Amino acid sequence: MTRIAVDALGGDRAPAEVIAGAHDAIRDGIDVVLYGPAGLDTGGIELVETIDVIEMAEKPAEAVRAKPNSSLVAAVRAVADGNADAVVSAGNTGAVLAAGLLHLRRLSGVMRPAIAVPIPAREKVSLLLDGGANADSRPEHLVQFAVMGSIFAQEMLDVANPEVRLLSIGEEPEKGDSATIEAHELLREEAGINFVGNAEGRDLLRGAADVVVTGGFNGNMALKLLEGTITELLDALREEITATTRGKVGGLLIRPAARRLRTRLDPETYGGAYLLGLRGLAVIAHGNSSRRAIGNAIRLAARGVDNQVVERLAERLPYRDRRDESHDA
Amino acid sequence: MTRIAVDALGGDRAPAEVIAGAHDAIRDGIDVVLYGPAGLDTGGIELVETIDVIEMAEKPAEAVRAKPNSSLVAAVRAVADGNADAVVSAGNTGAVLAAGLLHLRRLSGVMRPAIAVPIPAREKVSLLLDGGANADSRPEHLVQFAVMGSIFAQEMLDVANPEVRLLSIGEEPEKGDSATIEAHELLREEAGINFVGNAEGRDLLRGAADVVVTGGFNGNMALKLLEGTITELLDALREEITATTRGKVGGLLIRPAARRLRTRLDPETYGGAYLLGLRGLAVIAHGNSSRRAIGNAIRLAARGVDNQVVERLAERLPYRDRRDESHDA
Repeated sequence: MTRIAVDALGGDRAPAEVIAGAHDAIRDGIDVVLYGPAGLDTGGIELVETIDVIEMAEKPAEAVRAKPNSSLVAAVRAVADGNADAVVSAGNTGAVLAAGLLHLRRLSGVMRPAIAVPIPAREKVSLLLDGGANADSRPEHLVQFAVMGSIFAQEMLDVANPEVRLLSIGEEPEKGDSATIEAHELLREEAGINFVGNAEGRDLLRGAADVVVTGGFNGNMALKLLEGTITELLDALREEITATTRGKVGGLLIRPAARRLRTRLDPETYGGAYLLGLRGLAVIAHGNSSRRAIGNAIRLAARGVDNQVVERLAERLPYRDRRDESHDA
Repeated sequence: MTRIAVDALGGDRAPAEVIAGAHDAIRDGIDVVLYGPAGLDTGGIELVETIDVIEMAEKPAEAVRAKPNSSLVAAVRAVADGNADAVVSAGNTGAVLAAGLLHLRRLSGVMRPAIAVPIPAREKVSLLLDGGANADSRPEHLVQFAVMGSIFAQEMLDVANPEVRLLSIGEEPEKGDSATIEAHELLREEAGINFVGNAEGRDLLRGAADVVVTGGFNGNMALKLLEGTITELLDALREEITATTRGKVGGLLIRPAARRLRTRLDPETYGGAYLLGLRGLAVIAHGNSSRRAIGNAIRLAARGVDNQVVERLAERLPYRDRRDESHDA
């Protein structure tokens, strides 16, 4: 049975929602082990006792070094030690990355792991990398994000020849800041990916491509903007609708349609995103994850284990071969 | 009467929509002069004959140098020469900036002009700078954007003490890429602005602050993402609604509410945005501006002239004094 280590103290609504979500996942036949303080009432779920907590605002690398027995670091280490098949945390994203770099280590040749976030576009799911693992990304990192995203889309989403686009501010290769322009050139030269050009922000929810690459700062900003705009817009619409009696009646009638849309676009439907590029599987859940989001993040982690995400990336990453060759030389 | 120079060939729907929008503005008592090729049927609007066209995809600086008699450059030069009070173009944004730098020149001490884009947030209008004048922005540029945005909000939007936020990926000062972290520090040290911290993408449509500053690449990406998400979401909702009979009936009833929302959020309601930091007034309209957008952009330009946007910025920019002092020294 697939065994998932879960950081019981990760996220704004921990531990209550985390524990509740863990129970939901267990009901689906997933083995969950929680990492948290002694005495935590887990409702019968196995608990590995940990000492510290890493807060959301702490500096990742320092926090991971200073708190090796925190719930977050211990849960990540469980994967490295073979005590779990994957880890889920809704805690400090940077700290999950830092703990992953320290204990799971990078796949051969990977410069920077990246968060692959599924965007619920209209026609199909687009994968955005990096969703925020790296604050500063260099152009060559973006090329690796494209390669990892392509392999993931092929292996996990059954897309035969995934189209890759670069997030920029115009279709023309020379549009964008200098890092984006340089990344465009590198992506065009990269063999083994199907790079088809730039995507603009306006294309993101339209399903611009199978894989959309950008730096972690831009990617995280784009995701938050997308999420905030969806919420704000649906709220504003409700406000306008309920301002008149006519609107209120109409609002009741369209409620099922609005609910279908909300569900499709709700980030909690995915619950989390894979951190790709490490020698172990980590799923990062949203900071304000509810029980439902945590349950789905644990299911996502289990699916990733069953589908051997890490193994397939390791096998197919071109960097591995290059590195081996250079070792032979 | 306020006289506005309009680039008749600027934008994807030029010249037809540009000319039609110009007629609408003239009906409001604005004096419009069009810049375009000989023989252009302007329906009676004064035409200054120009020769070349700068295309959307051309490299701005090169195009402006190579085509001094293009409609875009000639319309900008009209302001420098005193033949018009302001210029409106829906053409190549970079080229408007390049022509502005060359012919209008920067206000004393301004390093980089910026596009100040009004965001139709729920409670109030937020001003986002830079909306895309600069592809690469340094932290010190962002401080100037904050200063220009604050003066603009005070003078033009009647906000007594405008709150300024920096667009980032977390509230904490240490979140973001290195340029954003550095900009946060500089903004905190800057006297004369009311810097209250970071804004996240999710806050943008909620009206996070009176002035939101970010680099031109991020700002342009954010605007396009906002615009695309709004369009895509309202389209998706219509699709869901019209999938059932019940929904269709409800859809008819909520139509006025949906229309009010669409109008509020429609970028064409503003039509354009001021390019701040030059010694003359330029309004940049959206590339695919319709007649309505062009009309509103011309009205915006005329309002800017009447309210002396450039003069007030020039008077109040702190850089002017500093520079004068250093000249005296």
